[in-house]
Amino acid sequence: MKAAILASGSGSNLQAIIDAAATDDGFGVDLALVISDRPSVRALERAADAGIPSVVIPWGGDRHAFTHEICEAIADTGCEIVVMAGFMRILGPEAIDRFPNRILNVHPALLPAFPGGHAVRDALAHGAKVTGVTVHFVDEEVDHGPIVSQAAVEIAADDDEQSLHARIQAEEHRLFPAAVKALGRGSLTVEGRTVRWRET
Amino acid sequence: MKAAILASGSGSNLQAIIDAAATDDGFGVDLALVISDRPSVRALERAADAGIPSVVIPWGGDRHAFTHEICEAIADTGCEIVVMAGFMRILGPEAIDRFPNRILNVHPALLPAFPGGHAVRDALAHGAKVTGVTVHFVDEEVDHGPIVSQAAVEIAADDDEQSLHARIQAEEHRLFPAAVKALGRGSLTVEGRTVRWRET
Repeated sequence: MKAAILASGSGSNLQAIIDAAATDDGFGVDLALVISDRPSVRALERAADAGIPSVVIPWGGDRHAFTHEICEAIADTGCEIVVMAGFMRILGPEAIDRFPNRILNVHPALLPAFPGGHAVRDALAHGAKVTGVTVHFVDEEVDHGPIVSQAAVEIAADDDEQSLHARIQAEEHRLFPAAVKALGRGSLTVEGRTVRWRET
Repeated sequence: MKAAILASGSGSNLQAIIDAAATDDGFGVDLALVISDRPSVRALERAADAGIPSVVIPWGGDRHAFTHEICEAIADTGCEIVVMAGFMRILGPEAIDRFPNRILNVHPALLPAFPGGHAVRDALAHGAKVTGVTVHFVDEEVDHGPIVSQAAVEIAADDDEQSLHARIQAEEHRLFPAAVKALGRGSLTVEGRTVRWRET
């Protein structure tokens, strides 16, 4: 099964997935396309280094047109899985309609706690003692779709946003490739809000 | 330092605190009073078995009067710490005013996720893969005050509400007595929403 990976920045989650695909014989997902909304980002270099074709689709200010262009690029490549790996734009309903329960996102908190764009900072400001990582399917609402996997990360007394984010990212790099692999192998089924993992 | 413990039902968290006080020479908190809003509950038997005086203060339908009566009972016994151990009533503002950052509550989820009276059921219905336990100070809002401690609990594919609640309660019985001990020893300081643990 082919996957398209959407990224906007450094692409560290993209790299984790590239590494998993390269080292795990059973990974079973062909990383066929990287899409960035911004040129000259590290994610595009990582794609080139891994021999993965990439396209830049700039945000033009119209979510409908932007989403349509991305969906067409994904479909043209024959991709059936979409991976949001640090992609900073929200896709419109066309993407969810065309790839239902096929779009994965990773969020640096244990959803439904701390949704939104500043999850690590928000967890610290709230005085939480435990936060974590959520891999979830994308649905119509932001940071809301069915949860594929979660891992807890303890917050230390001397943590700042940077140190906490680093430990959260380490968990992202463990959970996210495993979720992509499971989706590609048909191991994930969605019943309402519950995602079940099946052995294959 | 003396503590009053408020309970409404089986009192399993009360028992965990009684056991900790009995076995830990450094516990340092005198369990001086158990208050129940209901007669004939197991928590009152546990208090009697441990030699702790108890009173029943029935909910009369007026939160202000109910809260005042409880505060007077606590103050009359010289208690400076209040522990909500499965107490099913919400106290009014007088209690927070008289015991600021001195009222501990335990909640069966990782707040701010799944507040309210059905936290375990809500976590399952949401399809969460990780939930947990929060010990927090009580403030003016329900399930909201500064977080003293949290522990994560993984949700298994075959969990139902009962099996998940049992694992959550095991964590409650570990975290809650430790928080009572720390509060009694003056090891907890509150800065805004952040609770810091100091070694004593």
